[in-house]
Amino acid sequence: MKNNKPYYAVIFTSSHSENTEGYIEMAEQMEALAKKQYGFLGIESARSSIGITVSYWNSLEAIKNWKQQTDHLKAQQKGRHDWYDWYKVRICKVERDYEFEKAKS
Amino acid sequence: MKNNKPYYAVIFTSSHSENTEGYIEMAEQMEALAKKQYGFLGIESARSSIGITVSYWNSLEAIKNWKQQTDHLKAQQKGRHDWYDWYKVRICKVERDYEFEKAKS
Repeated sequence: MKNNKPYYAVIFTSSHSENTEGYIEMAEQMEALAKKQYGFLGIESARSSIGITVSYWNSLEAIKNWKQQTDHLKAQQKGRHDWYDWYKVRICKVERDYEFEKAKS
Repeated sequence: MKNNKPYYAVIFTSSHSENTEGYIEMAEQMEALAKKQYGFLGIESARSSIGITVSYWNSLEAIKNWKQQTDHLKAQQKGRHDWYDWYKVRICKVERDYEFEKAKS
């Protein structure tokens, strides 16, 4: 993943309703679509009792464009209607990052 | 969770090694300890093929203090030695947030 600073993160935290029909397919479609957007840098997802998806972008403008992308707008609407009891979105500026990778033994 | 802006998020993304002995107990201890730190606002975790834990803080100083807390330093060291093949830490300023909650029917 490219990370020429500064870059931005969208933290999407969600709680699912009991209705999950069609959710996985839509999530996969949206991830594929996000990857084609201008300014997209990467995406990470995990789900336990809550879901957390973090996507990374090179500008606030790229995040705004993605939020307003037509198919994504439809998915958001369906998400609020069908899949989510609750979600929270946080738009963040990544101030710094560092990483650890274990040496291969 | 309090969110008098500005506040900060630490996104911790990790990939586990095969050795997970003692991990869950330590994760629970560290979460309990984080909650007692000055400036702590909240924490969210999920795990699938990768783990994502996001903790929220009221200042960069609170994040720095938590990183250097003695028991937490020991846990970090054990994490690098035993539990993680890889992790990445991102320190972020939350620029804005919004949330959705489904009306009870």
